[in-house]
Amino acid sequence: MAKEITEKEENYSLWYNNLVTKADLAENSAVRGCMVIKPYGYAIWEKIQSQLDKMFKETGHVNAYFPLFIPKSFLSKEAEHVEGFAKECAVVTHHRLMANPDGSGVVVDPEAKLEEELIIRPTSETIIWNTYRNWIKSYRDLPLLINQWANVVRWEMRTRLFLRTAEFLWQEGHTAHETKEEAIEETEKIVNLYAQFAREYMAMPVLVGRKSESERFAGALDTLCIEALMQDGKALQAGTSHFLGQNFAKAFDVQFTSKEGKQEYVWATSWGVSTRLMGALVMAHSDNSGLVLPPKLAPVHVVMVPIFKTGEENDRILAKMKDIKVQLEKRGLTVKIDDRDNLRSGFKFAEWELKGVPVRVAIGPRDLEKGTAEISRRDTLMKTTINTDEVIEYVVGLMDKIQENIYLKALNFREENTFKIDDYDTFKEKIEEGGFLYCHWDGTAETEEKIKEETKATIRCIPMDDTDNEPGVCIYSGKPSKGRVFFARAY
Amino acid sequence: MAKEITEKEENYSLWYNNLVTKADLAENSAVRGCMVIKPYGYAIWEKIQSQLDKMFKETGHVNAYFPLFIPKSFLSKEAEHVEGFAKECAVVTHHRLMANPDGSGVVVDPEAKLEEELIIRPTSETIIWNTYRNWIKSYRDLPLLINQWANVVRWEMRTRLFLRTAEFLWQEGHTAHETKEEAIEETEKIVNLYAQFAREYMAMPVLVGRKSESERFAGALDTLCIEALMQDGKALQAGTSHFLGQNFAKAFDVQFTSKEGKQEYVWATSWGVSTRLMGALVMAHSDNSGLVLPPKLAPVHVVMVPIFKTGEENDRILAKMKDIKVQLEKRGLTVKIDDRDNLRSGFKFAEWELKGVPVRVAIGPRDLEKGTAEISRRDTLMKTTINTDEVIEYVVGLMDKIQENIYLKALNFREENTFKIDDYDTFKEKIEEGGFLYCHWDGTAETEEKIKEETKATIRCIPMDDTDNEPGVCIYSGKPSKGRVFFARAY
Repeated sequence: MAKEITEKEENYSLWYNNLVTKADLAENSAVRGCMVIKPYGYAIWEKIQSQLDKMFKETGHVNAYFPLFIPKSFLSKEAEHVEGFAKECAVVTHHRLMANPDGSGVVVDPEAKLEEELIIRPTSETIIWNTYRNWIKSYRDLPLLINQWANVVRWEMRTRLFLRTAEFLWQEGHTAHETKEEAIEETEKIVNLYAQFAREYMAMPVLVGRKSESERFAGALDTLCIEALMQDGKALQAGTSHFLGQNFAKAFDVQFTSKEGKQEYVWATSWGVSTRLMGALVMAHSDNSGLVLPPKLAPVHVVMVPIFKTGEENDRILAKMKDIKVQLEKRGLTVKIDDRDNLRSGFKFAEWELKGVPVRVAIGPRDLEKGTAEISRRDTLMKTTINTDEVIEYVVGLMDKIQENIYLKALNFREENTFKIDDYDTFKEKIEEGGFLYCHWDGTAETEEKIKEETKATIRCIPMDDTDNEPGVCIYSGKPSKGRVFFARAY
Repeated sequence: MAKEITEKEENYSLWYNNLVTKADLAENSAVRGCMVIKPYGYAIWEKIQSQLDKMFKETGHVNAYFPLFIPKSFLSKEAEHVEGFAKECAVVTHHRLMANPDGSGVVVDPEAKLEEELIIRPTSETIIWNTYRNWIKSYRDLPLLINQWANVVRWEMRTRLFLRTAEFLWQEGHTAHETKEEAIEETEKIVNLYAQFAREYMAMPVLVGRKSESERFAGALDTLCIEALMQDGKALQAGTSHFLGQNFAKAFDVQFTSKEGKQEYVWATSWGVSTRLMGALVMAHSDNSGLVLPPKLAPVHVVMVPIFKTGEENDRILAKMKDIKVQLEKRGLTVKIDDRDNLRSGFKFAEWELKGVPVRVAIGPRDLEKGTAEISRRDTLMKTTINTDEVIEYVVGLMDKIQENIYLKALNFREENTFKIDDYDTFKEKIEEGGFLYCHWDGTAETEEKIKEETKATIRCIPMDDTDNEPGVCIYSGKPSKGRVFFARAY
């Protein structure tokens, strides 16, 4: 092995941390709770960003940028929002440093206290709706379909790389609509867009559903979400889309003249996904050899490792590889030749497996003689030897196969770990093993809270599509239930 | 006119502000000194980003992301750097808000004071070099060619949209090298990349040169820059590239084992351009009708305005336009049909001129009859009527012509406003009119300071290419000068 990784069966949490740091995705910084996203990790995030951005634009959204700072008083304007977000946050109180009178370094200049403290945005509804007041006058100004790519800060006490960090990168969409129906339609359109992205690009099957009232975004009337199942049986919320009703429009007095000439409050949505998706990507597919990246998000699709022996042969191997590289690049793939001369090929194999590169091509002196190459798939770790003149088509074809196989594997895992449970004792037993428990619930916050206290399981979502659902009896209270919901322990 | 704009000859500063706000590029936010970049402005910034990012990657750079926060103590580690940056900055002192005991809103929780204050990054050398210490062990880890796209905060007292704002967006490259020569080569490579971008994409001629010692970046041994001339005769620094020597490596103890097995300090560069480029773009080309955008950075290349009369004709005009739109899009252009039915076409013409769209195509009932269209160029405001079957080739061809014409116009303006001056009285007279004054200087900070005090002119740059330069006599002190330098009043 290039770098030692704890096995996931032994310590899942350490396995995850090993992968993130040893595959060069990210690391903790000198600032508590803040991470450094390293070039290899950032390259994956760029692919995520670029595809999502394309999908947002195709559905009529545009990007903009709003301030990092939120005046403290703004947070208080929406009653529930302040409850949810005005707690652990970074507060700017001063705007100047000065030389320490004792001569050692710098100290905060007490004279430079801000009149009103500024909060680093934990989310931007307040500053954005304060801005929208001037942008929206008439129904002709609607809908307003705006997204921003930004950093946000939530002062989390316990942090984990990508999954929960004080600062993280995300996109936040903030849309404004004439009617309630249109805003609800937008909320649904986006959660479905997120689900499509998760499935087609991250190769990650997700449940699409509605949050229970207690799990809603602070200030929302309805929160839709995508939920994925990780390999340790815990659920991970991977994206949310909120119907905000007229709450923020009322808090910031955003009214418009309707077609009928009346003054009405604007209807709102907001939605976001973050660098948390990187954590989901790692946890959903990786194995004990390292990352398994879906080809659609892999920064490098193919790594080529020459098996060096003598100088003359090495040159011929590299020439052959450069030829293959050019042809693969013409087909849209990113290819790297690992010609480092100070490392054994076994070490290189392990390193690129750790980094999750979908396909490895190895050529040694004997391959050169026979006109063959050894192709290795990262997802199955299977090797095949084929003629070099078939390499291009074979490798290009593997990309779709690997993308599909990773998805099916994850889907299969989820299906094997989703259980219809009808009594609470079985629930308590099963929840220890992980997975989604699909159960009847009486719809009350009390029952939800009790189950959470007793089992650490929360309602991940209430399915949007209830064709497969029917009334029953709550597993906890025995009271009537309108339909099953998904419980799980979650990140 | 769609929206009233102050003429630039009347009040250049107000003209600029009018353009930025009325063309929907940006506006001031509720947070002092911070701007909101509106969708149209952000779309231009995205084009700037995407092209620069491509150029960085083509020259071997990769992106990463480092924390927003910098521990206060880090700033003190590089002596000059703290002088330059530890002054006006946003200081985070607390990490929690709490309900105000008097029941009104929220207040800072005094219990939640940070042990060490955090500064919002004004630039990231310190946090990045603190990180590099763990990344760089051997010469094999070098060079490290990393860039980040980020927001930064400098608590400016007097702010202007894009040109000087408390928060701004930028890219900052931070590279690490084995040798001094290699780092200097990188510094030069990047300033030339910036110059190429300014010329080819922003259609903005720039001088490339070296800053005098007093204008250097805090902590740099050498600062290279690109300087552009705005239409009011003031210079604008549009990008800088710094050779940092071993200053940050020493401050953060970043050493590597050289090929010879010795421990050596790493050589560094840093370089950046920001949303200030947006201000430069506006000021370099716009006129009293609004923005003039170079086609390579215009979010919309062609706007089509139907001249509506009766319903039946309108449908035929729109059908014709949709046909042209599809064909232009196939050629890589972004096209918008302005079919709003509540506005007169004259109003629309003015609005799209204000927004700087390079080409307008208008078709009315008479054009339809004759098979013609009216094509209008934003840069020259000239109109031509041509046959519709020639529209595609003509409009596609106009893009290059407009790009080139805007550049040549700006170059011509700069040449007409660059003067070789050999005596200080003429200097004092000429500087009132603006432009670059190309003069001999004795190389001392004292002379530079005196000239600045007396005329508000600074040395914008010492030319890199000194083939056209020769020794002479300082215009101020009469002492010997090694060569001419460019003086100007600057933004």
